[in-house]
Amino acid sequence: MNNYIDKNRDRFLNELLDLLRIPSVSADSKFKPDMIKAAEYVRDRISEAGADRVEIFETPGHPVVYGEKIIDPALPTVLVYGHYDVQPADPYELWNSPPFEPVIKNDRIYARGACDDKGQFYMHIKALETMLATDSLTCNIKMMIEGEEEIGSSHLETFVKEHRDLLKCDTILISDTSIIANDVPSIETGLRGLTYMEVEVVGANRDLHSGVYGGGVANPINVLCEMIASLKDENGHITIPGFYDQVQELSQAERDALNAAPFDLDEYKKDLVIDDVAGEKGYTTIERTSIRPTLDVNGIWGGYIGEGAKTVLPSKANAKISMRLVPNQTDQEICALFTKHFESIAPASVKVKVTPHHGGLPYVTPTDSVEYEAASLAMEESFGKKPIPTRGGGSIPIVALFEQELGQKSILMGFGLDIDALHSPNESYGLFNYYKGIETIPLFFKHYARLKK
Amino acid sequence: MNNYIDKNRDRFLNELLDLLRIPSVSADSKFKPDMIKAAEYVRDRISEAGADRVEIFETPGHPVVYGEKIIDPALPTVLVYGHYDVQPADPYELWNSPPFEPVIKNDRIYARGACDDKGQFYMHIKALETMLATDSLTCNIKMMIEGEEEIGSSHLETFVKEHRDLLKCDTILISDTSIIANDVPSIETGLRGLTYMEVEVVGANRDLHSGVYGGGVANPINVLCEMIASLKDENGHITIPGFYDQVQELSQAERDALNAAPFDLDEYKKDLVIDDVAGEKGYTTIERTSIRPTLDVNGIWGGYIGEGAKTVLPSKANAKISMRLVPNQTDQEICALFTKHFESIAPASVKVKVTPHHGGLPYVTPTDSVEYEAASLAMEESFGKKPIPTRGGGSIPIVALFEQELGQKSILMGFGLDIDALHSPNESYGLFNYYKGIETIPLFFKHYARLKK
Repeated sequence: MNNYIDKNRDRFLNELLDLLRIPSVSADSKFKPDMIKAAEYVRDRISEAGADRVEIFETPGHPVVYGEKIIDPALPTVLVYGHYDVQPADPYELWNSPPFEPVIKNDRIYARGACDDKGQFYMHIKALETMLATDSLTCNIKMMIEGEEEIGSSHLETFVKEHRDLLKCDTILISDTSIIANDVPSIETGLRGLTYMEVEVVGANRDLHSGVYGGGVANPINVLCEMIASLKDENGHITIPGFYDQVQELSQAERDALNAAPFDLDEYKKDLVIDDVAGEKGYTTIERTSIRPTLDVNGIWGGYIGEGAKTVLPSKANAKISMRLVPNQTDQEICALFTKHFESIAPASVKVKVTPHHGGLPYVTPTDSVEYEAASLAMEESFGKKPIPTRGGGSIPIVALFEQELGQKSILMGFGLDIDALHSPNESYGLFNYYKGIETIPLFFKHYARLKK
Repeated sequence: MNNYIDKNRDRFLNELLDLLRIPSVSADSKFKPDMIKAAEYVRDRISEAGADRVEIFETPGHPVVYGEKIIDPALPTVLVYGHYDVQPADPYELWNSPPFEPVIKNDRIYARGACDDKGQFYMHIKALETMLATDSLTCNIKMMIEGEEEIGSSHLETFVKEHRDLLKCDTILISDTSIIANDVPSIETGLRGLTYMEVEVVGANRDLHSGVYGGGVANPINVLCEMIASLKDENGHITIPGFYDQVQELSQAERDALNAAPFDLDEYKKDLVIDDVAGEKGYTTIERTSIRPTLDVNGIWGGYIGEGAKTVLPSKANAKISMRLVPNQTDQEICALFTKHFESIAPASVKVKVTPHHGGLPYVTPTDSVEYEAASLAMEESFGKKPIPTRGGGSIPIVALFEQELGQKSILMGFGLDIDALHSPNESYGLFNYYKGIETIPLFFKHYARLKK
């Protein structure tokens, strides 16, 4: 099988590069035509790989691509999930090369979506091709590649509900996460949830002269800053009433296991070029970024932001604010608590509007399941090392939905690295990781079929 | 004289409209050619009005236009000051008509700079023309129209120092302020100073994934908000150490006189469409906007501000912050205090940079001078009502410079109104105010020449 992968190395890479050249940004409507182009490209490659029933399903948002290979209804069925949409690429000026003109440098692919998630789901298409070409597919396989993961998979819930039979499976396999290092494989057993909202603070009905009115009329930017600052106390605890009520506290043993994972704080600071980390008092960096909820302002704007100075007292100020959630918080509940609190702390001198964007539930998967065992054995075989179970800080809203609608857990067997700069300028994905994934995925099917017997 | 003004009404207006069509925005370098065009237009109109020695003086920044009419060295000389540069017009989408395509609606001229200061300084050119055409000029007159008032008159200090003799005068007359109402004339006897700076807060060296790093690394937007919020306490007092040390406290009698000016809080709130005013505890709105210093964020930006949601933990956040100053604060001292304090409150997890933009000293002029008396009599004659002395909240940095370099006080005989929306979309200037100014200015010269005898 590795033989076949070696023989087709270059083609496997070039096909991914062609996919990366399509700017499939789901958040920005001006890229709508590229979203369709990307979906069609994925459909054609899945069908070339040898899948049946390959088709594009329209949704009220961006389309879903589906394909399957049912070799024997008696065999277990694996549903592979991925997403062909990517994060916006701006700020463009910080990219060393254009985000949608992939380049290979020091054995890494540089492009928006190189790792998240084009590079990672495309490994599955090439793994499928490899298994069929070498006649070594041991399970039935279904593939669903969506186009709205970066904007909350808002229409996928309806799609999954309406296609329960089509998506029926024994487990779900997803590559959209990272390993600790190329010589320290790991599998994510938990994910944080997310709730994301946009807030607007309005003062006077028009921009004002800061000399004529300054000091006498509320400045919405100052007010927004004060409101945001008040959302955390001096220990980094979030002050929204009820915010922590449902938070699942881990036992000391569980926390110790988590902190046992290799982590070098000095390396971490050096990589980010910061003098110090920051976060909730009483928790380590690993804990702050995995088992604790957060509140981050993702964007803020108001007043004059052009060149030079303008002495304006602006009419309004806006911010995008998101919270990462942990078991057992729900995005709906936290969104409601945030909205109620944020409106309640607004002074009478301004008007406040909160607009929810999207959310997703947190997720935990057990490490004693057949599925986890199969993934662990597959990685151990390809990496020559038993993978470490970790808890991730990111969110894949869909996994909670799968559990609820399809009644199956998801296995998060990802191959990225922290240095891949997801959501950042100069996102990249290692060639080692790309080919290692294509090599590992068939091993999962092999072990899974055996263990399921 | 009013006869001559009436006969030339339309031409006087059309000349101003032509000036308003030139987008002379000093803050934005892309308008540099328009700045030169505006300067040349002003030069030509001054010369047509009948002035001598009309010329454009280059500076390292935007040019200064000068012209004079010396009818008799024995007579007192009045230096008229104004500025042909305007504030940036954005946000453009909030204008009902394009900012540089003036339109007349309900007897008002709508355009950027209609009042501040093109409409107001152009009255002086037409007043000069009128006085010369009707042979009624009673003093020598010098005119200096600069192009950098909206960006702090940064190069005018050097220019004034280098042209002390050219600018030698007995008093300075400026129309760049407002009256209380068209039936309640007033003269500003004080102005607030200004210090303006840009701040930058930098966290990690790149934008980060808010899931992978969120909670463990400082978010520069959250930090900037916390730092800005901490600059004021719950009573609206500014917390920068030493900020109030030099502030001139007014006697209760002075405060009572100030608060005696006609002011309707309900009207004020209705005009701004706000439920409540805001500001420093223990002071009225009139006091907050005139005799008390302020701290306002004029602009803020950071992270993702495009359409939709992006779960980014940004690398940096920026803000433009200005403070209005009162006697006897100095912009240099307050700028230094702010910078020292702002840097001192930055947590170790971020790096902070403060860049001063420009500043100006506060100013007070006595009401018992010959100059004030002349202005008061002129307004009383044209409005039929004795003007009320007021303290303005805005800043004209140049007046302190004039006092220091030319040894003369400035008379702030302005004709604008609060509803003119200076620095805002849909800036306007009343036709009544434009013609009333052209009619009042010659009366100032008349009374001034008589009183100076």
